[in-house]
Amino acid sequence: MNSPLVLDTESVKYIIGDGALEKSSNKFDQYGRVIIITDDNVEKHCLPVFKRKLPDLKIFATITIISGEENKSIHQLIYIWNELTRLNVGRDDLIINLGGGVLTDIAGMAAATFKRGVQFMNFPTTLLGMVDAAIGGKTGIDFAQFKNQVGLFINPVCVIIDPIFLSTLEKAHWQSGFAEVVKYGLIMDRELWQKLNKKHYQQIDDWSSIIIKAARDKIDIVRFDVYEKGMRKNLNFGHTIGHAIESFYLKSGKPVTHGTAIAAGIICEAWISSKIFSLECTNLEPIVKMIDNNFSRFNFTTDDIPVIMKLMKQDKKIRENKQKMSLIRKIGKAVHDIEIDDDLITKSLIFYIERKKCNN
Amino acid sequence: MNSPLVLDTESVKYIIGDGALEKSSNKFDQYGRVIIITDDNVEKHCLPVFKRKLPDLKIFATITIISGEENKSIHQLIYIWNELTRLNVGRDDLIINLGGGVLTDIAGMAAATFKRGVQFMNFPTTLLGMVDAAIGGKTGIDFAQFKNQVGLFINPVCVIIDPIFLSTLEKAHWQSGFAEVVKYGLIMDRELWQKLNKKHYQQIDDWSSIIIKAARDKIDIVRFDVYEKGMRKNLNFGHTIGHAIESFYLKSGKPVTHGTAIAAGIICEAWISSKIFSLECTNLEPIVKMIDNNFSRFNFTTDDIPVIMKLMKQDKKIRENKQKMSLIRKIGKAVHDIEIDDDLITKSLIFYIERKKCNN
Repeated sequence: MNSPLVLDTESVKYIIGDGALEKSSNKFDQYGRVIIITDDNVEKHCLPVFKRKLPDLKIFATITIISGEENKSIHQLIYIWNELTRLNVGRDDLIINLGGGVLTDIAGMAAATFKRGVQFMNFPTTLLGMVDAAIGGKTGIDFAQFKNQVGLFINPVCVIIDPIFLSTLEKAHWQSGFAEVVKYGLIMDRELWQKLNKKHYQQIDDWSSIIIKAARDKIDIVRFDVYEKGMRKNLNFGHTIGHAIESFYLKSGKPVTHGTAIAAGIICEAWISSKIFSLECTNLEPIVKMIDNNFSRFNFTTDDIPVIMKLMKQDKKIRENKQKMSLIRKIGKAVHDIEIDDDLITKSLIFYIERKKCNN
Repeated sequence: MNSPLVLDTESVKYIIGDGALEKSSNKFDQYGRVIIITDDNVEKHCLPVFKRKLPDLKIFATITIISGEENKSIHQLIYIWNELTRLNVGRDDLIINLGGGVLTDIAGMAAATFKRGVQFMNFPTTLLGMVDAAIGGKTGIDFAQFKNQVGLFINPVCVIIDPIFLSTLEKAHWQSGFAEVVKYGLIMDRELWQKLNKKHYQQIDDWSSIIIKAARDKIDIVRFDVYEKGMRKNLNFGHTIGHAIESFYLKSGKPVTHGTAIAAGIICEAWISSKIFSLECTNLEPIVKMIDNNFSRFNFTTDDIPVIMKLMKQDKKIRENKQKMSLIRKIGKAVHDIEIDDDLITKSLIFYIERKKCNN
């Protein structure tokens, strides 16, 4: 087993890879009491592992919320604030957020706003959390039916990423994270792409090295663009259309997994990239094949496209009715703030529906 | 009329003094739409003045909350988030917070957490807001019966302080701000103290210059200690005991003004300073006289002291059961993190009750 990667940036310390939990054991000394925030699912499957790997860590209390995206709500945020009040948690104490993306988002916001900021660490337990949600300081809750409508940018003091938790994951959770890993390959990391290309995610044996690469890609972007003014927008590749598809199924009462929606978004936005930047067919085809190999296709039809387009306009990243997107010039190189006509977006959805491969 | 003071720090632009409103007219160009958040009281008395002084500013919408400390609540925060959602406010828009300390606290938190941060400016309309609450980035709400239990440190892009609004103030609001002005004199600004000493606040004719000095004192402290790790704690002089007295009367169902409570806290903590640092009687006496000249005394008795002591322990600035205080070595020079025995605090309250002057 290789040693985990230890990375100290200006504001956050990262430990990533197999053995990260054990390696984090000296990070807790400078704080008062330790409070864990987790969810019912993670408490059952991951907290025992956490405790076994950190046997000397004294845990003062555990706050458990209800798992699931539909519970990323103001009610659970208020529940956490009430529990922190009841426990009289102070600014010198430490909050450990143990869970997936929903948990680190909501618990991060709770910690950052309790008494104007209690320090916290993220211990992601899902692939999506490890390569995306736990890194970069985005916290928040859904509000008034909008995703992440309320929240703030605030960094944890440490992010400890140990793949040991992955064995507990269900298929949907694997896929959600895997779509983001593929995205890093496409937007900035040709070497990562080559490790993934032509593989099914279940064929990958060295997750530690894949996670180290993907997490590092995200860290490299967010540390220089905390507030999403520039290159951080590259991370939205696949997400403009992907989020709209996700919202479409959510509002239809048939919610789909985030990963599958983003995978569909990647196909559409790679196709748009091929039209705008002459991303060659030799590039487009392997992307589509790779996605199809790992994710099933949705069955929406051309009749659904107007609804999907409308949902896209509601995305908070869109202003002044300009549809700005992040695209790829080639595999491993993204560009952001490209204005795209609605017509071309519509055509990309038709491409998704009608053609499985670009040379059909 | 002198020109207002224009001060550009690393993170915040300040315009302070007579004429500040007019001077701010070129600060709005770089934003999308302008949304004002205010309260019912300020909307009536100050918004017309604001509009008259900035006739060219296009206001897209005004969100009005209910005035009063008892409304610094999660309910009003949620109301603002809902209104911002309804108006589809985006990250490029600008929120103007127009009001006193309660308003800028709650609206600052709302702006900073909506879509992970909409930029905002503070236009304080009370003396307390002008010299204290609108400066330094503390935002928040009361929660679970604790003051400012939930919130964050986040700076507005501009703070525009125009004394024009002061003519609308009631006595209680004058006193709340004046106690803080006196405090700046005592902890860091001997020159300011000398301008105030032996005066009743109604005798002061040049408020613009007083406010420029006091606001500048606060700016000088908070810009180098945003998160209250060090010298910012000096600002707590008078507040450890003052807050406890304020809570005591609040819980007794007879709420008192913040300023009068802080004024009482200043007497007690100046007395403690005289015991710890030999703050000489020649210093203590003018402080007590000055406070008594401007604020009436409370009528709590020695029987109430245990309750007040208990409330003090609940203050969030107290950890590990150590009672740390900010005190003054002499007029114009504060020190923080001084550990004080409960016994001495009790004696300071007895001093407040029993003796009007230190040489009695």
